[in-house]
Formats: sequence, C-alpha cells, structure tokens
Amino acid sequence: MSRRFHHAALVGKYQAEGIRPLLAEVAQFLMREGLEVSLERETALSTGLTEFDALTPAQIGARCDLAIVVGGDGTMLGIARELARHNVPLVGINQGRLGFITDVPLGHWREALAPMIAGDYEEDPRAMLEGELWRDGERFFEGLSMNDVVVGRGATASMVELRVDIGDEFVANIRADGLIVSSPTGSTAYALSAGGPILHPRIAGWVVVPIASHTMSNRPIVLPDAEEVRITVVAGRDASANFDMQGLASLLHGDQVRVRRSAHKVRFLHPRGWSYYATLRRKLRWYEGVV
Amino acid sequence: MSRRFHHAALVGKYQAEGIRPLLAEVAQFLMREGLEVSLERETALSTGLTEFDALTPAQIGARCDLAIVVGGDGTMLGIARELARHNVPLVGINQGRLGFITDVPLGHWREALAPMIAGDYEEDPRAMLEGELWRDGERFFEGLSMNDVVVGRGATASMVELRVDIGDEFVANIRADGLIVSSPTGSTAYALSAGGPILHPRIAGWVVVPIASHTMSNRPIVLPDAEEVRITVVAGRDASANFDMQGLASLLHGDQVRVRRSAHKVRFLHPRGWSYYATLRRKLRWYEGVV
Amino acid sequence: MSRRFHHAALVGKYQAEGIRPLLAEVAQFLMREGLEVSLERETALSTGLTEFDALTPAQIGARCDLAIVVGGDGTMLGIARELARHNVPLVGINQGRLGFITDVPLGHWREALAPMIAGDYEEDPRAMLEGELWRDGERFFEGLSMNDVVVGRGATASMVELRVDIGDEFVANIRADGLIVSSPTGSTAYALSAGGPILHPRIAGWVVVPIASHTMSNRPIVLPDAEEVRITVVAGRDASANFDMQGLASLLHGDQVRVRRSAHKVRFLHPRGWSYYATLRRKLRWYEGVV
Amino acid sequence: MSRRFHHAALVGKYQAEGIRPLLAEVAQFLMREGLEVSLERETALSTGLTEFDALTPAQIGARCDLAIVVGGDGTMLGIARELARHNVPLVGINQGRLGFITDVPLGHWREALAPMIAGDYEEDPRAMLEGELWRDGERFFEGLSMNDVVVGRGATASMVELRVDIGDEFVANIRADGLIVSSPTGSTAYALSAGGPILHPRIAGWVVVPIASHTMSNRPIVLPDAEEVRITVVAGRDASANFDMQGLASLLHGDQVRVRRSAHKVRFLHPRGWSYYATLRRKLRWYEGVV
Repeated sequence: MSRRFHHAALVGKYQAEGIRPLLAEVAQFLMREGLEVSLERETALSTGLTEFDALTPAQIGARCDLAIVVGGDGTMLGIARELARHNVPLVGINQGRLGFITDVPLGHWREALAPMIAGDYEEDPRAMLEGELWRDGERFFEGLSMNDVVVGRGATASMVELRVDIGDEFVANIRADGLIVSSPTGSTAYALSAGGPILHPRIAGWVVVPIASHTMSNRPIVLPDAEEVRITVVAGRDASANFDMQGLASLLHGDQVRVRRSAHKVRFLHPRGWSYYATLRRKLRWYEGVV
Repeated sequence: MSRRFHHAALVGKYQAEGIRPLLAEVAQFLMREGLEVSLERETALSTGLTEFDALTPAQIGARCDLAIVVGGDGTMLGIARELARHNVPLVGINQGRLGFITDVPLGHWREALAPMIAGDYEEDPRAMLEGELWRDGERFFEGLSMNDVVVGRGATASMVELRVDIGDEFVANIRADGLIVSSPTGSTAYALSAGGPILHPRIAGWVVVPIASHTMSNRPIVLPDAEEVRITVVAGRDASANFDMQGLASLLHGDQVRVRRSAHKVRFLHPRGWSYYATLRRKLRWYEGVV
Repeated sequence: MSRRFHHAALVGKYQAEGIRPLLAEVAQFLMREGLEVSLERETALSTGLTEFDALTPAQIGARCDLAIVVGGDGTMLGIARELARHNVPLVGINQGRLGFITDVPLGHWREALAPMIAGDYEEDPRAMLEGELWRDGERFFEGLSMNDVVVGRGATASMVELRVDIGDEFVANIRADGLIVSSPTGSTAYALSAGGPILHPRIAGWVVVPIASHTMSNRPIVLPDAEEVRITVVAGRDASANFDMQGLASLLHGDQVRVRRSAHKVRFLHPRGWSYYATLRRKLRWYEGVV
Repeated sequence: MSRRFHHAALVGKYQAEGIRPLLAEVAQFLMREGLEVSLERETALSTGLTEFDALTPAQIGARCDLAIVVGGDGTMLGIARELARHNVPLVGINQGRLGFITDVPLGHWREALAPMIAGDYEEDPRAMLEGELWRDGERFFEGLSMNDVVVGRGATASMVELRVDIGDEFVANIRADGLIVSSPTGSTAYALSAGGPILHPRIAGWVVVPIASHTMSNRPIVLPDAEEVRITVVAGRDASANFDMQGLASLLHGDQVRVRRSAHKVRFLHPRGWSYYATLRRKLRWYEGVV
C-alpha cells in the first residue's frame, strides 16, 4: 500500500499530560504504517515523551508533510496558525465532543487514520485573516487569525465608535460593543454568538458583525475578501484588538486595524465521506426543533 | 463628444400615465445627444406616446444598447429580468425615494445622464437566480429572479417542512414558515426582513434564510453559487414558490424547487462616484443610532 | 389518605387508538384511588372504551374537578381551551418528548399522579387570549387562544400592512409577513420562532412580535394585558387570522382583530418540584453551548 | 390660576456652561409663575449662576416639589437616580434630538411648561432597579439603576460564565459576553442593542438579555420583578458589573450581583397628550420601512 505521507508531527493539547498514552499509541501506529514521527516541542515538554524528535513549528514546517493534532478546535486552530506559512495539512483527533474541525473520534482513530495516510481523505482548505495594527503611520503588530479579528470596547466604556473602510471606500461608522471581522471558519464561532450568518468555507469573503450595535439596521455584512478592511478607532475608552480571542495591546483613538486575506491557506484533512453540512447539523443540532 | 451608446429604450412604471411628460423630455434629451430612442411597448401603451418605436423586451434586446428606466427598484427589477438574456445595461431615474438600484434623482437627471451616455459611469453587474419547479421528474416551470426564490407555507398551514440539498450534499431539513434563497441583490430586500445578512454584490454566493424557523440554530447560511440548491417539500399544506415575490403554482409534497446561478448577469449603470456602501448608509440610515 | 379530587375526566390524543391500554390503566388507577372516572367524548369514540361515561367538555366542566390528558402540548392546549370557562385543572401525561406543559413522563405516571391526586402538586395558572373579528362594526367571530392570535399575509401577497392600537392609543403601522399577539404560554411557541422573547407565565402582559417586518426597528414589544389590542388590516391581499394556529376566515381591508385577556385562566397542575425554568432548560437545551 | 408646584429645582447638563442663559430664562419664567427656584449644586457651580440657592440632591428632595432638567436622557437618568428616594417629579427640556424621556423641545418650553406647572400633565412612573454586589457573604456595594445592571466579561477574556437564579429557583448558566438585567425604561437602551424586546413601562417585570450568548437558544426572557435576581460569576477573567453603564469594581469568581425592584419609583412628567407609543415611533422611526 502506497503512502501519501512520510513524516508526521504529533501535536497535543498544551499542558495535557493525560494524553501521553494516546500520543504514544498514535506514534506507534504511524511508525508501523511506515511514517517517520516527530513531536511538536511543547507537546514533548508537557507529556515527557522523549523517544521522538521534538520540533518547533518552523521545523515541522520544513520537515513534516502531515500534522496530527490531539485536542479540540482551539488546539487545532492554534497549531494551524503556527503552521500556516508551511502548507502542512492537519488532521484532528478529538477527545471530547467533536468539533467543527477536529472530527476524528477518539474511539475510531485507527480506522479513520489508516486510509487517510494512504491518501484517501477529503481536503478542506480554509482562508486565514492577516491582521495588522497601525498607529501614527507605523505598524506595531501583525498576526494571523483562523477565526476572527475583533475590535471591542474597554470593560469600563459604554461603547466604541469605529470607522470601517474597505479598499478605498468608506463603509460606515459603527457605535457598538465591538466589531468582528470573521473568516468562514470563524463564522461558526464568536461571530455566530453575535448574530452573524454561517459562511461556507468556499465563500471568498468575510463577514463583518457588529456586537450590540446602537443602530438596529447595522446588520452583518458579507464583504469580498479581495480588498483590505480597515477599522479605525474613532471614540471610546480602552478599545482593544483581539486576534482569535487573544487579547492584544489597547488601542488609542486613531489607531487602525487592517485585515486582509492571507496568501496562505490552512489545509485540514478529514476522513473520506466528511461533509461540511453534516458537521453543521451535528454541532448546531439542526435536526431538533424546539417549538 | 463621443457617444458610448447609440440606441436607448425608455421604460416607465407600468400604468403610470403621469410620467408621460418626463419620458418625453428624456427622449428629447437623448435624441439631442444623438441617440436613437424607442419605447418599451407597455410603456408606450400606458403613456400614449406614439412618436417612438414601441419595442418588446426581445426587440429591445436585439436593437438597443441602453435601457433607461423611470421608476423605483420594483420597476427596474422587473424590466432587468426581462432584458437579462440580452446584456442591455440599465440606468434608473427614480421619481420617489431613491432605491438601492435606481439612483438617478428626478431633479438632476440631465446632469447625471449626460456623462453616462458619453461612457462615464460605474458598471455594477449583478448575478441572477435561475429557478425551476419539478414534479415527478418533470420540470413544470422555469424563471429568473433578481432578488430571491422563496418557498413558503400556505396561509392555513402552521409550517412547511423543506429538505435542502446543494450539489450532491444534503444540507438540512427545515421546519419554518418558509425559506428564502437570495442573491446579493435580494439580500437587502425580503431576506433582510427575515433576518439575513447583507451580501456585497461581488460575493459569489447566495444566502439561504429560514423564515420563523422552529429550530433556533437555523441561522442564515451563505452558500457558494457554483452549485445548484434544491428545496424539496416534505410536509405542510399548500406550500408555494415565489420568484421575486411573484406567487406561483402551489407545491405538492415531493415537488422540488431548483435554484442555480444564471449564466446571464444584469448590468446596472450608475453615475460616476456611485458607491454601494453610500447607498447602504442612505437606505439603512446607518448614520443614526437610536440608543 | 385524603383525596383532593373526586371526579376525573380522561382525555386522549384525538384519533389515537393506540393509547387505549394506557387510558384504561390510568382509569383503573384513579378508581382504585377512589375517584370517579369519565372519558371525554371524542376520546371515548376514538378509543372504543365504553365502560366509562362519555362527557362533552361542557359536561366535564359541570361534573369533574380534574382532567388528565394523555398526549403532547398540542392536545393539552386544545382541551384546555375547551375547559377554560369551567375552571377544571389539567394534568398532562406525555407519551413522547416532554412538552412545555405536559410533563408527567409515561414511564412514571403512577408515582407522579398519586401525590397529585392527594393534593400535593404545583399549580401553574395561565392567562388566555380572547379574540374577536370585526367587520363593518359587527363582530363575526370570537374565540379563545392559549398561545397566540396571528394576523398574516396571504400566500400570494408580498406583505400585509397592519395598524396596531392598544386601549385608546395608536401604537404603529406595521408592514410585515404578519403579527403575533402571544400570551406568556405562547411565547415559547410560534412567537419564539419569529424572534420574540420568553415571557414568564406570571408576567401580566403579552408580546407583540412582527414576522419579517419591513422596518428593522420593529422589535417585539411587551404590552400590559389590561387593555385591548386592536389590529386593523390596512393593506395586503388575503390576510388571515389564526387563533392557536387554527386558520380562520380571510380578512378584508378594514377588518379588525381585537384581543384582550380572558376573564378565565387555565390551571395546569404539575408534580411537586416542578420548575418553569427547568422546563425551559430542558426544552431549549440551555445547558449546551454550540460555540 | 392655581399652581400645582411651589418650589422647582433646575438641573443642567454637567460642565455645560453654554446652558447658563437658558437656565436663567427658565428660572425667570418659573418665578413669574410664582414658584420658588433653586439650582442643583453642580449645575450652579458649572454655570456660575449665583442668584439662586444651590442645593444638593438631598436638599432638593427635602425642599422642592419639582425638578426641571435641561439636557438629554443621560442627564435626566442621572439626576432621577439621585432624587429617587425623594419622590420629586421630573420634567426634561431637551436641547438636542428629543429623547425617550426628555421630551419638552427647546423651542417650545414656555408653552409646554406653563400648563404643566398648573397641574396639567401626564405622569409617567418608572420602576428602578436596586442592585447589590456580594462577596464572601458580605455586601460591598449597593446602588440604584434606572436602566440596567450589566455583568460583563473583561476585555481580555473570551467570555464570562454566569449563574442566574430568581427567588429560590435556578434559571440557567449562561456563557456569553455578558448579561443585562433591564427595567422597562432600560429596554430601549443597551438591552435593545443586545437584541432585547421593548417593555412597556407598566409591565411589572424586567428583561434579562444575554450579550453574544454561546448558546443560540438563550433568548431574552422577561421575568416578574417581584423576586430578586441573583447573578453569580462562575468563570471568566476580570468580569465587571455596571449600573446604568457606570463601571464598577471587578468581580471575582463567586461574587454575586443581586437585583431587585426598588421600593421607589421615579416620576417623570410629560406635557398633556404625551404618548409612550408616539415616542417609540419617533425614536425608532417605525414609520419608515427600508425594504
């Protein structure tokens, strides 16, 4: 049987010593299938597994052609962001309730992984957001997001006023608790909580969702991802920017958050037969009416 | 001064005799600018203007390279649908409150039209929905929509149950008052009333919006327009299909509504400086907070 | 052991022959507990149980001091409406998924009913809506609703325009698919689907919820139930009124739907320990986040 | 002409020197009408008007039988809270866009005030929220709110988890950006932005509105105001409580916010003919459809 992949990196939930036996089993399994196996460095440290090379994300990017992640969507999105520039595809084994992305169930990982390693899988490419923070004409931060870039009011402020531009066009001034720029992947995360629609991963756009907007007609709007979105802080104390819910430096009036589509895509792999819609039905319980 | 267009068709609000003087003035203006002028046939009949050729939509499609429409968005969408297969661009002069599409104001039509006729305009292409109704393996209706295709429950039914598929994938069974499949153009019409997001016209997708869904997690979902959406009536009395709010034949259990992107686009022309976002701000009063 | 109740009427799901054994068992149980037992007439007819008196709702109202209903919320609301003027309390045994109201589970009905018959229960009084239809100064229909009175557009109309007044004050003109006037009981039914809030049963108000309103600021509004709400059809073809989802006569322009609080309350009984909020948590799955 | 009031206190927007001429005119007018006139102390300080007694809110409460407020809803709610325990009615003269509460327009204040002073007015009583913060069994803060009590996540946290109880019943655990407990008065403020319904001022309840809830079925719920609502911080960094948008001390896990109806009501006075619904129509632009 041919192998599609040759060198897999294993990645675990951070500080999760409890997954050491599982990681060891998966590693044995992969080696028996003929793959070289390394461990992501943090995973090696937290589990104490020492019989494999411990690689940084950059080293994984340079040497591995597959990453197998044990954990939930949060773990997956974190490592996916780190590997994003390296084009390494990722598979997720989920210990808990299946996620939107991590959908190999713990009880069936062998049956699920075997054909995938042989090349029989569904590839699910996802766009990423590339964000920058600008102050006084200087960029002082840049980062990648799988889900979203959020600009929010400070905890003691009653609102933040944000000016939104796209390309060279003015969109609107928004007074709200905050504003979410979400990728299709993020559309089932925080943006959904804030009232946004679901975007299929193949939609070449992002959805801009105001949080608790003071103007009731400020509906979520789906914008083409071909142009840069710029969000400027106009008013409001202690505004802050978050990339994938990681809180970043406070923003001052005039500071600008710029968001554009990353040149890189993350490549998630799923077992053959995977369906985006089946995942939605399961996660959102679409089969169950309440009324 | 060069002319970009050579033969304009004038189209008026149906049964609106009151616009006869305006149509006559616009016609005189266009002829002075060197264009040949015809009248859409229904417009000629309802206004009694007899000094111009009266053309059917098909004849307009064959002979004219510009349509100038006097009326609101409803009039415009109606004639746009009829001219859709002929690639004739349209300009809208609005007598009332400016619309999302018809944005040449009555008070400034000369200043607005003159440069447009010379070729100085913004082109705003819009995707259309092509819908079909199927029963027992036979297609019994087909039509075009600028805004939306809606499948709804009968007035005496408490709900309709609809099965949604896209391409060869099952999406969900929805129990609701109905389901809207909307183009980006339609996203600011009925779909907005039903809770949908706004889709920029360049988004290559449509938004599927349930109306009063029994399952609260049945959020609007934006789907790629590359594949056919099929909606099958599973349960519910007297379900009906509407194309752009035109009520059509009642649907029986098992009947299917198929929606795909039309090969044709409508080409709306706007005065130079037109901005999609400025239209949104004006129509949705985004500049006005209520709280 | 003292008995709180003396004569129980049994009511079953209509046309549900399958519940005959269960009804017979419940009847035996009640007689052993010392109660006289009768059957609601339709239930007697559809099950063929002949050994009990078959009573009309009016007769149940005159003779019985308890009604035990086997079925779901729909069955319960139907019989509750019929018994409303007679002050007979109701208990619901649910064969399927527990409802908002019918919460004695099939597997435990003996343990649940025994203490209730002895007087150990939670009483849960619910307000009802009394509705009337008026045309040209004449009332042509009146009825009771447990959940809601709905005025909706016809299936072939794009909307209905409704004028809403309360007491002697004008509230608003609404252009929408329709308008729901819902009791607290109905607030977890159709009104919830249309975007309304949940109203605790002790709130002395009803919630007016527009369905797909053309004006985005037409939010649900909770009004005191002390005054009459009047809804007048201003525009729109084939508008209709529904009481608890029972379709009624078509409405003409100028027709008026009047809704006020009924002088009668329905009295639902629940096992001791019943909690309104526990029911909400269970039915709405509040313990489960999706994102 | 009889006078209904005898001693009015004038209150102005804080730090608004520009309203000095207007305040002086209103004071002259009131004295000519036979009233004694005092100035709220902060207003006296910021305007430099020295010819009137400068009174603290407590002194206003003890001596005055009317407060006339120049400013918007924010100014009004602030002073109303301070005067709440003293039963002094309030009238609002609005310099800008009319508010929900402050509805005597600047251009017509004389015509509006004259009959009101004579006793011809509409009284509009409003319930207030009384809130307390508890830690380790000790109350460490108490305050009044006209609009709302809000418990929110910290700016760097992705959510807060809150346990909600009412009376001695558990309602739900909510994971969200925060939770609003709003009075009917507050239902047109922040709660409206977060998706809540409008509550008529005579509804004896408050509405609990989750902000960006992770559970989509966590709808706004209207609860009777007869019982205390308790919100306990279960998880989430840097949660904070706000009373009428005034940021308060950070909350720790286990801290509890308790909210109950205040024994005091605020008494707003409006010109004869005032209508709550007319205010809604004007503020929410209910007369204007967008689609």
